[in-house]
Amino acid sequence: MLNFNYSIPTKIFFGKEQIQSLIGQINQYGTRILLVYGGGSIKKIGLYNKVVTLLKENNLPYWELPGIDPNPRIESVRKGIALCRENQINFVLAIGGGSTIDCAKLIAAGFFYPKDPWDLMIGTAKFEKALPLGTILTLAATGSEMDPIAVISNPEINQKIGTGHPTMAPKFSILDPTYTFSVPKSQTAAGTADIMSHALESFFSGIRSAYLQSRMSEAILKTCIKYGPIAMVEPENYEARANLMWASSLAINGLLSYGKERKWSAHPIEHELSAYYDITHGVGLAIITPHWMEYVLDDSTVDVFKDYGVNVWGLNPELEAYEIARQAIEKTKAFFVSLGLPTTLSAVNISEEKLELMANAATKHGPLGEFRPINAHDVLQILKASL
Amino acid sequence: MLNFNYSIPTKIFFGKEQIQSLIGQINQYGTRILLVYGGGSIKKIGLYNKVVTLLKENNLPYWELPGIDPNPRIESVRKGIALCRENQINFVLAIGGGSTIDCAKLIAAGFFYPKDPWDLMIGTAKFEKALPLGTILTLAATGSEMDPIAVISNPEINQKIGTGHPTMAPKFSILDPTYTFSVPKSQTAAGTADIMSHALESFFSGIRSAYLQSRMSEAILKTCIKYGPIAMVEPENYEARANLMWASSLAINGLLSYGKERKWSAHPIEHELSAYYDITHGVGLAIITPHWMEYVLDDSTVDVFKDYGVNVWGLNPELEAYEIARQAIEKTKAFFVSLGLPTTLSAVNISEEKLELMANAATKHGPLGEFRPINAHDVLQILKASL
Repeated sequence: MLNFNYSIPTKIFFGKEQIQSLIGQINQYGTRILLVYGGGSIKKIGLYNKVVTLLKENNLPYWELPGIDPNPRIESVRKGIALCRENQINFVLAIGGGSTIDCAKLIAAGFFYPKDPWDLMIGTAKFEKALPLGTILTLAATGSEMDPIAVISNPEINQKIGTGHPTMAPKFSILDPTYTFSVPKSQTAAGTADIMSHALESFFSGIRSAYLQSRMSEAILKTCIKYGPIAMVEPENYEARANLMWASSLAINGLLSYGKERKWSAHPIEHELSAYYDITHGVGLAIITPHWMEYVLDDSTVDVFKDYGVNVWGLNPELEAYEIARQAIEKTKAFFVSLGLPTTLSAVNISEEKLELMANAATKHGPLGEFRPINAHDVLQILKASL
Repeated sequence: MLNFNYSIPTKIFFGKEQIQSLIGQINQYGTRILLVYGGGSIKKIGLYNKVVTLLKENNLPYWELPGIDPNPRIESVRKGIALCRENQINFVLAIGGGSTIDCAKLIAAGFFYPKDPWDLMIGTAKFEKALPLGTILTLAATGSEMDPIAVISNPEINQKIGTGHPTMAPKFSILDPTYTFSVPKSQTAAGTADIMSHALESFFSGIRSAYLQSRMSEAILKTCIKYGPIAMVEPENYEARANLMWASSLAINGLLSYGKERKWSAHPIEHELSAYYDITHGVGLAIITPHWMEYVLDDSTVDVFKDYGVNVWGLNPELEAYEIARQAIEKTKAFFVSLGLPTTLSAVNISEEKLELMANAATKHGPLGEFRPINAHDVLQILKASL
């Protein structure tokens, strides 16, 4: 197990009607609020009304930044920062899924940086502080509600970059599973794939000695495999939505990766797909992940695949290791298919044209992953196999 | 899944040489230090010298409260509070295992309460604030390093009580697995049983819908089952000590019990054994737990035992549920035996004499547990079966 420094400061208010904690929490941090949200779904489910009513009743002035896109754009961040500066805003409240929360995070940090916030994403400027941020989650997927990471797109230059800093960790997040009852099937499926991908990226690690962390990754994976399909068929099944929601937060808040190296493989590849084709993150991950698995399966990795097959998919431990590994990969694919997710790049209208460009871009800072490091050539093979 | 409010504020510095973080952390919280520790083991392993050298080099004055007993006593707490008041101490540093840390917690809270600190334990006074507290852990067992709970004994009146308050959560804990290399076999075994007991108390819950939490309990249990025996035979096996140490913290910091009710069964029974006979906590738990399991196994609980047998002990899921349950309980017992732990009360010199007294004391606030609530009569049967 590698050394690690653990700090997960975000308070979670989990369950039905936890919105009642909102004002008490805001009062600890700010008085002038920026509401950040996406499309109309929070209005449809009545959440928007609940929040603004509470703010008004408590004399908390607020300003709004609606319309945050999936794969949130740097342009929205710039707008948000301007709104905060014009109105002396001192608290940011994100209501939505990971895109909205990521956008709010960079607004909160960019507020204190006098130049263009994209500098913070590409590392030419340093994070120093951020406005306090709270979130109300409406989609179980990215885990942004409990981590310090933001992934932002800059479509003008086909870049989608993730970066993190402790100051961007939400002070609190309200997780009411009923807010996800109306999430459509396609997004429930993509969200489930996203959560699983986070657990898989941590699970498939060269640091075999972090045994406890691997078993916890399996706990997350089993939860997704059990409840993803239930939430698809019974969207208002509280137990399913609650387990998926809590899994989303725990899959990426550090718990699974502390003690391992956090060098991921499928995510950086997917970021290129989203950067060039603006596809849904979880969909891209569902396409890439099984092909990545097939590519990195070899004598040095087969034992971890065996653990995966036996502990997560319940395969017979008596079978030969490669047989277990292959069956486990097939089961992974079949599971994504059962959720209605596409399995090929062509299904999301990605052709061979830019594969090499994306493979080079994904590896421009060096090989990906530490489980079985892959370079541009490897990524290209994985992308081609995914066509 | 029940509603819950999650907050685990303790920062963890995990791994070799993390002692280097000590001064930077103390500097955030205080300037005049109370060192709380137990016997001579921290001197034997050179940890005491390391800490006082660091404090001296950084001109941080310190006072000492040594000699904290296993099952720490309220008398030590009173002494510690007096020391703090006499010397304007503003930071408490516990170096040791759970007993030392628990004692330090009540010193930190009792400092602000003008009367006798036992009032805080029995609930006739309320926790309001506490001195900031840090810990350096030397035993993987109680998880006190990452929770807000203190268990204190008052031998004059045969009471051992646990209570918790957020103000008592350590600000930081330094977890260097090498500090546990010298832990003797008997304590390694008892610590492993203690960790497992925390995971089992959360696992055996009536809140079946908290599926993810149950799977995480299994992760902790599998970790103990794998590494407890290794640490017994190879006390300097870093991987084993590291996994056990991290398991100890995660087993009781809330992660496994959020979303379930935290109404435990074996612990309150064991507290009476320790209160009357001053036995090692983990030993008492290892004796009681399998007998508690046998007693509560019935049609309403057998499915959870089946999960336990299949997921933790790898039993064949095709077997009949009661058969799996019985085998799982036998495996639990056999595991404790393999660690050299006693399996009966008589082996730790407890006779029938006070069983009824203890059964009544354990249930004086009502039935224990919510998985299968047990009253004084039930506890007595469990104790008798354990003789």
